[in-house]
Amino acid sequence: MSNYLKMSKDELNAEFKLAKAEYEKLRALHLSLDMSRGKPGADNMDLSEKMFDLVGNDTGFKNIDGIDCRNYGGLDGLRELKNLFGEILGLAPDQIIVGGNSSLNMMFDTIAQAMTHGLGGEPWCKTEGIKFLCPAPGYDRHFAITEYFGFELVPVKLNDDGPDMDEVEELIKDEKVKGIWCVPKYANPEGITYSDEVVRRFAALKPAAKDFRIFWDNAYCIHELYEDGDNLLNIYDECVKAGNPDLPIIFASTSKISFPGAGVAVEAGSPNNVAILKSRMAFQTIGPDKLNQLRHARMFKSAADLYEHMKKHADIIRPKFESVLGELEKIKDTGVARWTNPKGGYFISLYVLPGCAKRVEQLCANAGLILTPAGAAYPYGKDPDDSNIRIAPSFPSAEDIKTAAVVLCAAVKVAALEKLIEA
Amino acid sequence: MSNYLKMSKDELNAEFKLAKAEYEKLRALHLSLDMSRGKPGADNMDLSEKMFDLVGNDTGFKNIDGIDCRNYGGLDGLRELKNLFGEILGLAPDQIIVGGNSSLNMMFDTIAQAMTHGLGGEPWCKTEGIKFLCPAPGYDRHFAITEYFGFELVPVKLNDDGPDMDEVEELIKDEKVKGIWCVPKYANPEGITYSDEVVRRFAALKPAAKDFRIFWDNAYCIHELYEDGDNLLNIYDECVKAGNPDLPIIFASTSKISFPGAGVAVEAGSPNNVAILKSRMAFQTIGPDKLNQLRHARMFKSAADLYEHMKKHADIIRPKFESVLGELEKIKDTGVARWTNPKGGYFISLYVLPGCAKRVEQLCANAGLILTPAGAAYPYGKDPDDSNIRIAPSFPSAEDIKTAAVVLCAAVKVAALEKLIEA
Repeated sequence: MSNYLKMSKDELNAEFKLAKAEYEKLRALHLSLDMSRGKPGADNMDLSEKMFDLVGNDTGFKNIDGIDCRNYGGLDGLRELKNLFGEILGLAPDQIIVGGNSSLNMMFDTIAQAMTHGLGGEPWCKTEGIKFLCPAPGYDRHFAITEYFGFELVPVKLNDDGPDMDEVEELIKDEKVKGIWCVPKYANPEGITYSDEVVRRFAALKPAAKDFRIFWDNAYCIHELYEDGDNLLNIYDECVKAGNPDLPIIFASTSKISFPGAGVAVEAGSPNNVAILKSRMAFQTIGPDKLNQLRHARMFKSAADLYEHMKKHADIIRPKFESVLGELEKIKDTGVARWTNPKGGYFISLYVLPGCAKRVEQLCANAGLILTPAGAAYPYGKDPDDSNIRIAPSFPSAEDIKTAAVVLCAAVKVAALEKLIEA
Repeated sequence: MSNYLKMSKDELNAEFKLAKAEYEKLRALHLSLDMSRGKPGADNMDLSEKMFDLVGNDTGFKNIDGIDCRNYGGLDGLRELKNLFGEILGLAPDQIIVGGNSSLNMMFDTIAQAMTHGLGGEPWCKTEGIKFLCPAPGYDRHFAITEYFGFELVPVKLNDDGPDMDEVEELIKDEKVKGIWCVPKYANPEGITYSDEVVRRFAALKPAAKDFRIFWDNAYCIHELYEDGDNLLNIYDECVKAGNPDLPIIFASTSKISFPGAGVAVEAGSPNNVAILKSRMAFQTIGPDKLNQLRHARMFKSAADLYEHMKKHADIIRPKFESVLGELEKIKDTGVARWTNPKGGYFISLYVLPGCAKRVEQLCANAGLILTPAGAAYPYGKDPDDSNIRIAPSFPSAEDIKTAAVVLCAAVKVAALEKLIEA
C-alpha cells in the first residue's frame, strides 16, 4: 500500500475499488461493535469481585472511626478514603471530600454552586456572557456542563505537553473567563500528560477574574498502560508555591479502578475551597453512600494496593490498545491517518484527512461499529477540521477489538479515497 | 400530680423542689442519649442484612433488562425499581426517576435546576424575592434548602388535616410564591396525614406563578406503626383530574426501609416534569449507583415484600414510641405539655408551655440527652411560641428510650415550674 496523497486519479480509483470491496466484505458480516465510550470491559470489573464480600453481615459495617456506615451522616466521607486519595493525589486527607459514584456529578454541582452562590465572588448567574476555556480536543461531558450553564466555550489548542499556555495566559486577561477544563494526565482523548512547565504556568496564572478556577480532572491519575508511565507534577503544591492555593479544584474517582457506575468519587482543593464546598453540600445532602465507601476502603487499604490493582487492569487493556495500534500501523503508508500512542488512560486519538471524520463515523456505523460521534471532543461538538475521531478500545473483547480496528481502518481508507477522488 | 396551671405560688415552689430533685438525680447518671434526628436504630438496619448477599459474584450483576449494573449508564435507574415505586406511589413506572442514596439531594438539585434553568418558566435566579411556603412545624432540612437559595420562607399553619388551605390559596396569588414543602403522610414532625379534602384543594390550586410546584415529599409513604395506618389520597391523580398534572413533584426513598445512608431515592411527576428533570440530569451525571439499586430490586420484588418488611420495622419502633408516650402520659395532669400520637412516621411532636422549649432542650442537654434544637421545625429555626420540641424515638435502644423519656419529662416539669414561678 502506498501513499494515497501521491497517487494519480487512476491509481486512486483502482485503490478505491479495492478498499470498497474490503469494506463491503466487512459490512456483510453484520457486526455489532461499540468503541464509543471509555467503558471498562466486564473482565476489568471482575478484578474487583472481592469487594462484594468485604461489607456484609460477617464483616460488620463500621469504619476505623466506629461509624456505622449504614446510617445517616458523614458529609465528606470516610477517613480511610481521605487518607487513600490524599496519598494518591499528594494532598492532606482533610483537603479531600469523598462523595458518591460520580466525579462528573461533583464537577457539575460545583459549577451549579458557582452559578447560584459564586466561588468567593458574585454568583456567576449575575454575570452575562461567562466564558470557559476548553482545551480541545477534550472531554465532551466537561464541555457539555459549561454549555448547559450557558457559558461561551472558548477552545484552546492542546499541544503535546498540555494546553497552549500562551493562549491561556492571554485569554484569562478577560474577567469573563471563569475557568478551564483540564484532564492533566492521559488527557481524554489525546492521551498526553501536562509537562512540568505547563503545570507551573497554570499554578502561576493571575486571572482577571478573582474567582477563576482550574477544574483539574485527574481522572486517569494512576491509569498507566505501561510500567514507565507519565509523571504529573502536583498542581496544588505548585499553586501554593505560586501563592495561588485556591486556583485548582481537583477531581478523581475509582470509576475505572473499581466500577464505573458504582465507584467512589472525590473532590479536593485548598482548605478554603474545601470549606466553601462542604458548607454548601451540608444543604444538599446528609451524606454519601458510606457502605460503598467502606467496600472500597476495605479492598484498597493503601496506595500500594491500588497500584497493584491497576497493573491488572493494564494487563487487560494494554493488548486492546496494541491491537488497534497494530491495525492502524498497517495503513500508515497511506498518509491519510495519524494517531496518538498513549502510555495510559482510555483513548487513542485518531486524525483522518480533514473533512473525513464524519464520513468515517458513518461508514463504521453502516458496518455495525459505533464510534464516538466525530467532533465530540470539541466545544459544541464541532471539530473545525472534521478530522478527529476518539477511539475507546477498552470495552469490546480482545477478539472484537481487532475486528473493530479492521473495520475502522477500512472506513478510513474508503473515506479518504472518496475525498481525494472528488477533489 | 395535679395541674400546675392551677397551683398557688407556694404549691409551685414545693412542686419545683420535687421536680428539681428528680431532675438532678437523673443528671447525676451522666447519661449520653440522642433523640435529635430521625435515625433508625441498628436493629432496624439489621432487617435488611440479607441485601448484602443478593449482589455479588454468585448472583451476577445484571438486572431484568440484562444491564450490567457495574458499568456506566442508565440515567434514570433500573426498571425493577421504577415498577416497585410506581406500585407504592400509584404512578406509572416511566413517571419515576430512580436516583442515588438521598431524596433530599434530589429536592435540592431540582431547586438548583429551577434557579439556573427554571421549571418551565424563567430561571428563578432572575427573580428577586422568591417566596416558598413552609407549613410549620415542618422538616428543618426542607426549609434550609430554600433558605440557602435566598428565598423568603413563608410559614403556613399546619392543621390536623394538613396545611391551612385557606392560607395557601391566598398566598399563591402572589406570583413570587414558587412552591411549597409538603410531607403529606405522617408529617415531620406532627405525624398528621393530609386529608382527602386538603389533597384535592392542593390539586386544584391555580397559582399566580405558572411554574409553582408542590414539593411532595412522601418520605413516610409506607411507614406505618399500626395495622390501621393513615390513607393518603394520590396527589398526582387528583392533579390530573383538576387539569394540573405538572403541579406536584413527588419524592420518596428507602432511607427508612433499607439503610438511611445507603438506600435508594426516587423523584417522580408528570411526563412533562420527568422529561425536564431527565434532560438536566443528563448533564449532571452518567447515572446512579445501579448496583445498590439492584440490591434493593432483588430484596424487594414487590410492594407486598415491602409492606411485610415495614411491619418488622414497626415492631421495633412502635414500642419506642409507646415508651415515650407512656412517660408523657404520666405528666399529662400537669397541664404543661401536649403531644401528638401518630400512627406512623418517625416523630412525636411535643408542645411545652410557651417560652419553655429552649429551656427544656438545655435542661435535657445538661442531663446528657440531645434533642432536636428547639425551633428547628420552624422557618429560620424560630418557633414564634418557643413551645415545640420534635421527639425522635427511633434511634436509642428500647431501654435507653425509656430513660430518655423520663429525663425529657423531668425537664418539661422543671422548665414549666421555673416559668410559672417567675411569672
